[in-house]
Amino acid sequence: MDFSPSDRVVAMRRLARDFCVQEVEPEELSLAAQGWTDLEERMAPVRERAKGTGLFAPHMPAEHGGAGLALLEQAQLSEVLGMHPLGHYAFNFAAPDVGNMELIHAWGTAAQKERWLGPLVRGEIRSTFLMTEPEHAGSNPVWMSTTAERRGDEWLLRGHKWFATAADGASVAVVMAMTDPQAANPYARASMFLVPTDSEGYELVRNISVMGHAGRGWLSHGELMLHGVRVPGDAVLGPVGGGFKLAQSRLEPGRIHHVSRWVGVCRRALDLMCRQAAQRELAPGRPLAGQQTVQEWIAESRAEIEAARLLVLQTAWKIDRQGEFREDVSLIKFHVAGVLQRVLDRAIQVHGALGMTDDTPLAFWYRHERAARIYDGPDEVHKRVVARSMLKPYGVNLRGLGDV
Amino acid sequence: MDFSPSDRVVAMRRLARDFCVQEVEPEELSLAAQGWTDLEERMAPVRERAKGTGLFAPHMPAEHGGAGLALLEQAQLSEVLGMHPLGHYAFNFAAPDVGNMELIHAWGTAAQKERWLGPLVRGEIRSTFLMTEPEHAGSNPVWMSTTAERRGDEWLLRGHKWFATAADGASVAVVMAMTDPQAANPYARASMFLVPTDSEGYELVRNISVMGHAGRGWLSHGELMLHGVRVPGDAVLGPVGGGFKLAQSRLEPGRIHHVSRWVGVCRRALDLMCRQAAQRELAPGRPLAGQQTVQEWIAESRAEIEAARLLVLQTAWKIDRQGEFREDVSLIKFHVAGVLQRVLDRAIQVHGALGMTDDTPLAFWYRHERAARIYDGPDEVHKRVVARSMLKPYGVNLRGLGDV
Amino acid sequence: MDFSPSDRVVAMRRLARDFCVQEVEPEELSLAAQGWTDLEERMAPVRERAKGTGLFAPHMPAEHGGAGLALLEQAQLSEVLGMHPLGHYAFNFAAPDVGNMELIHAWGTAAQKERWLGPLVRGEIRSTFLMTEPEHAGSNPVWMSTTAERRGDEWLLRGHKWFATAADGASVAVVMAMTDPQAANPYARASMFLVPTDSEGYELVRNISVMGHAGRGWLSHGELMLHGVRVPGDAVLGPVGGGFKLAQSRLEPGRIHHVSRWVGVCRRALDLMCRQAAQRELAPGRPLAGQQTVQEWIAESRAEIEAARLLVLQTAWKIDRQGEFREDVSLIKFHVAGVLQRVLDRAIQVHGALGMTDDTPLAFWYRHERAARIYDGPDEVHKRVVARSMLKPYGVNLRGLGDV
Amino acid sequence: MDFSPSDRVVAMRRLARDFCVQEVEPEELSLAAQGWTDLEERMAPVRERAKGTGLFAPHMPAEHGGAGLALLEQAQLSEVLGMHPLGHYAFNFAAPDVGNMELIHAWGTAAQKERWLGPLVRGEIRSTFLMTEPEHAGSNPVWMSTTAERRGDEWLLRGHKWFATAADGASVAVVMAMTDPQAANPYARASMFLVPTDSEGYELVRNISVMGHAGRGWLSHGELMLHGVRVPGDAVLGPVGGGFKLAQSRLEPGRIHHVSRWVGVCRRALDLMCRQAAQRELAPGRPLAGQQTVQEWIAESRAEIEAARLLVLQTAWKIDRQGEFREDVSLIKFHVAGVLQRVLDRAIQVHGALGMTDDTPLAFWYRHERAARIYDGPDEVHKRVVARSMLKPYGVNLRGLGDV
Repeated sequence: MDFSPSDRVVAMRRLARDFCVQEVEPEELSLAAQGWTDLEERMAPVRERAKGTGLFAPHMPAEHGGAGLALLEQAQLSEVLGMHPLGHYAFNFAAPDVGNMELIHAWGTAAQKERWLGPLVRGEIRSTFLMTEPEHAGSNPVWMSTTAERRGDEWLLRGHKWFATAADGASVAVVMAMTDPQAANPYARASMFLVPTDSEGYELVRNISVMGHAGRGWLSHGELMLHGVRVPGDAVLGPVGGGFKLAQSRLEPGRIHHVSRWVGVCRRALDLMCRQAAQRELAPGRPLAGQQTVQEWIAESRAEIEAARLLVLQTAWKIDRQGEFREDVSLIKFHVAGVLQRVLDRAIQVHGALGMTDDTPLAFWYRHERAARIYDGPDEVHKRVVARSMLKPYGVNLRGLGDV
Repeated sequence: MDFSPSDRVVAMRRLARDFCVQEVEPEELSLAAQGWTDLEERMAPVRERAKGTGLFAPHMPAEHGGAGLALLEQAQLSEVLGMHPLGHYAFNFAAPDVGNMELIHAWGTAAQKERWLGPLVRGEIRSTFLMTEPEHAGSNPVWMSTTAERRGDEWLLRGHKWFATAADGASVAVVMAMTDPQAANPYARASMFLVPTDSEGYELVRNISVMGHAGRGWLSHGELMLHGVRVPGDAVLGPVGGGFKLAQSRLEPGRIHHVSRWVGVCRRALDLMCRQAAQRELAPGRPLAGQQTVQEWIAESRAEIEAARLLVLQTAWKIDRQGEFREDVSLIKFHVAGVLQRVLDRAIQVHGALGMTDDTPLAFWYRHERAARIYDGPDEVHKRVVARSMLKPYGVNLRGLGDV
Repeated sequence: MDFSPSDRVVAMRRLARDFCVQEVEPEELSLAAQGWTDLEERMAPVRERAKGTGLFAPHMPAEHGGAGLALLEQAQLSEVLGMHPLGHYAFNFAAPDVGNMELIHAWGTAAQKERWLGPLVRGEIRSTFLMTEPEHAGSNPVWMSTTAERRGDEWLLRGHKWFATAADGASVAVVMAMTDPQAANPYARASMFLVPTDSEGYELVRNISVMGHAGRGWLSHGELMLHGVRVPGDAVLGPVGGGFKLAQSRLEPGRIHHVSRWVGVCRRALDLMCRQAAQRELAPGRPLAGQQTVQEWIAESRAEIEAARLLVLQTAWKIDRQGEFREDVSLIKFHVAGVLQRVLDRAIQVHGALGMTDDTPLAFWYRHERAARIYDGPDEVHKRVVARSMLKPYGVNLRGLGDV
Repeated sequence: MDFSPSDRVVAMRRLARDFCVQEVEPEELSLAAQGWTDLEERMAPVRERAKGTGLFAPHMPAEHGGAGLALLEQAQLSEVLGMHPLGHYAFNFAAPDVGNMELIHAWGTAAQKERWLGPLVRGEIRSTFLMTEPEHAGSNPVWMSTTAERRGDEWLLRGHKWFATAADGASVAVVMAMTDPQAANPYARASMFLVPTDSEGYELVRNISVMGHAGRGWLSHGELMLHGVRVPGDAVLGPVGGGFKLAQSRLEPGRIHHVSRWVGVCRRALDLMCRQAAQRELAPGRPLAGQQTVQEWIAESRAEIEAARLLVLQTAWKIDRQGEFREDVSLIKFHVAGVLQRVLDRAIQVHGALGMTDDTPLAFWYRHERAARIYDGPDEVHKRVVARSMLKPYGVNLRGLGDV
């Protein structure tokens, strides 16, 4: 048992931190106050320079142009990048591209990789992921209406999707659709498809207004219609009927990325909290830091963040060594989302009216990371996954008890 | 002891509720998704029609053109209007105008009332309130840098203010400024002034970006510079040196308005929560309402809201009968703000991704009402006020113990 | 709407409070430290003197020897008595006798009343209530194994019960038993019986060790066996098959008594908290009251208690006017139990090590009132009752969704 | 970075766990229901057999008869022993003896070690620690009234102490007393003494009634008077004036022991929670485990425990490598105490009425471990220590801001 990061990780984190402070942080307040707007253009040279650190696309193997980090190392890096709202984007390590790259890398054919993976890893194009449907609860992954019918050599996709992050401006969509809606095994009904967004019948209906902004580009969530989109037979990603399995395989490391990013958000929020407590005076010579309540928020945040951080690292370490741990990933997903929300709330309270403004990144995180307890499975689903696993050794089968 | 509303109140609430559902609700989602934009124009005819209910400007006496309600009745009405983000605005019962009208009514000279009160009550002009300064903690009401110097017949105002709600478009600003910064009694140092916003040297520097939006018009928070603004000697509102006293007198009923509005927000959020739980299915025939966690959120919200509502009503009732109750107002200020935040959080979680969107008013409230625990005194200040009052009978004088 | 207590209630509360401080409080610490022991004997003269206040057995009509208070008045009195662990016992207003008296009064025959009700009202005998069974979840009121078989003129009772409060020393047990276990309507399967505790086959197996003490007399919880106890045909209380209905009718006002007692416990805990904060010094001249955290606990407790108190009073007032309100009673049951636990926890923390001792009543309440969230239906059951009622207008029938 | 326990630790934990289940668990319910009573006698042979495991007195070096574990290993062992209320006692690894042995080992003279350390390590005698005084807040370590005056070759001790754990039956008391009450440095005023409990003038006034029990023997908390107790000059432990320093050095590893014990308590509580959820039925075929609320408690407990456990291990590991980390120890002290209280509360709720009884160890822990947030420094003190350390890099000196 040893909890220290390796020298390699220490160096990598220092490099990433310095880069973010110098190159990324200057843009973060404009993101908070004005949304995405012209950031794509302004971030392009930053991303070019990020390649120079050797940490660009850290989740991809070197042979595909990435930094080839193990999952534990990715988590340790993600924490540092997470301190800045644009950190992951700068390093091409942001959702939904990360998950899509991982999917294509793991399941794609050589042709699919050549067409989509290279440009994605180099940050030349963006992608989106079409799974959730407005008519169905996102927490039930086997219930959807979008279908893909085999028509000769082609597939015909029809459906209605939403909350497709970064659909606006994406070149390719990974689409989940029912290929065998009557299959006895509900987990074998769907398949995944790689759909060019310029296909006929593919329509981005709107960018959904989320927390006050419809958003643009990478920072948007699209609602889409597939009005009978035709894709060739080889547009299937992975096996036909393997959609659910791929979705799971995509979400699990993806959750590690999110969760370790949240640890970074928390650390930044705690830093801002301490800074504000030190600088803001209630009366001349009486800094906010002298308030016991503020001291307690700092201490409680510190404890929650540090404990959560270790839990995330242990999970990444286990997956690196032994492969999938669905219940461990669920455990950190809901736990860290809760820590995140509490820490952000305290940081805002310490900042008072300033915390409500976009003069710090706190308000941006406060409104957008409320989704942390919702997306990629709400808290309630992940708690059930953990409970199911915990109760199994006691002879309980939750699925048999009316579990969704 | 009797907890039932009078017949008059029952009728008044029904009238207001029906008006809001028919006239106000259609605009609320555009407010949430697009901000104020062209709402001033679209709300003008709605406000005209609201006058027909006899409930317009309910807090003002009939002789000044208001509905002349007692504070308890105002609270009961406010709860209904609070169910809609534009409810109070429609009835000219919204901050900061309400507090400013009350101030001018209570302390204004006949000339001041004629010039400003009439147009405000009739909703012809808007006003703003300049108190908080970026350099000083808003929670310390006696520490500010804005000064008003007597220069012959005039006052010369210099200073820097922010979080002046609705400054954009206001015709008049009520300005708090130090008139005797060295007075031994810190509570006698400041005075209030009525400053026309077209005065020379009065500058609206920016609408502060708050939770992602700089806002416009009534839905904005201004940062202002007073570059040596000259106002005549009779621009003082109330006695010279009475600024702190007026501020307190303004805030206390104002907090009742806010707090009873929050009860309305909570009730609407609970309604939306139940509605969503009933309609949304996790799987065919399995509504969200069947989830125990959702049921518990509904029950807990119901209990917290109903208990808080009674506490608010009791406070209004006490003030109607016996005058000021600073600690009672502080008690409901922090308590109901906490209930509000918890209820909104649960309502969003029940809505899942939909809760993040602006397709319901929940996300609007979630981001803007985070300020409920901050403005008009943060939780921490109000808790101290309550504790100070509670501990007095035990022989403790908190002021003597280094209290701010 | 008017929230003030009547003059009659004010006088009654003052009388009860003075009596408790003078007569009851001296015994409360011996209860906490030593348990019931010889308290029955020492409390006997106190109870005699309590009769002199005219408030003895306040829940019973005057013609049966009680004080004949309405439910709202009972709640207002209960709050005062609740400030002392022995307050309700002193006034013969304590569980389980209160509920048993109410049952017999409502449903008993003239003979049953003569035999049992008179002595109970006069405090000459005690009673117990046998419902919960160790083999079955107490939260499912229609699932039990105890049976009563008709044998000619008699009933033969067999079964195993526990958590029969005050069974030790009781003269009569109200026993819930299945009389028609196969009845289609599960709510019509059980009946209630009045069983003398000296009946053959009635065995008090043990006083269950609860929170460190097996207890004695009134302060005990018995486990009992009914080894074929024979009672005459007229031992049925109320109609045959009416057991569930009677149990509900017993529990609902009973919960008002408990809940308003908890409000009293909270008020006492808050008083002790303030007292300790004022007296205890962290260093010379620096009372604990100067700590912001302590101030916040005091303020938060005050808000929660006062809001909860109003909710309880409103519920009692509604029942007095309109009869049963099952969901309102459930609402206050779980809500006030939560407030109680939080307030006691804070009060102990303010007392530090002293809070762990039996030198204040806090530790007694801390351990015994943990059951507030369990007995008479755990929180979870009451939340479901509230949710069921809240969701009905939205077209949801929770019973149809697999509700217990 | 590697989170796995060493093979040695795995083996050690298995050994300890099996021993506890077989030898210690059978006594735990009698402890809960009857208190210490005759357990000293019954545990004597168990302790003898525990020596056979090689893990007896694990915190002491082998040359003094202990198992010589590093602090990290002690924490890993403590977690297993903590699953049983008598686990630490069985292995002579329980407060207050552990801390006293560590003190004597670190600071004692050869003669002191020979007289006291050997018998303590072998479990032949017990000790107590006299620090807290009823007149002074325990959270202020430099404020006490007990004095030790030099009188020729002797010291004369006078004072009043309480919460001296296990004073009843102890052979030796480690006593903190002021030797230079006027010293300019408040941290240099006190010294520690080794006082035989059969000294003249040493009086155990009472075992304090704590949570319903005065307790006996090891499970008691004494109030003591030192009526001019005379001890020889060489009874000082460590340097004269070093009392505060020794107290700190005693408390810090001691807190690691407590905190890792609490992790064990939590794990056991979670195990009992799962077991009860699996076994208890709400209706035939409907185990409690099917309730979503119960599932969520299990999942939340799992997350909190596992995260807390890693935080504790990291702290022990840091201390093993780099020595003292006062703020890290404070961090886990308050954080894990909070987790403990929440987990126990949930476990009791899952057990319902059974959770209130002494038929599981939960009620014992519920009442006695409430002190976890109080003893060895209340939460509030430890949070301040953490905040002070966190705020230092931001230029804040909390001591200068009126910190205690």
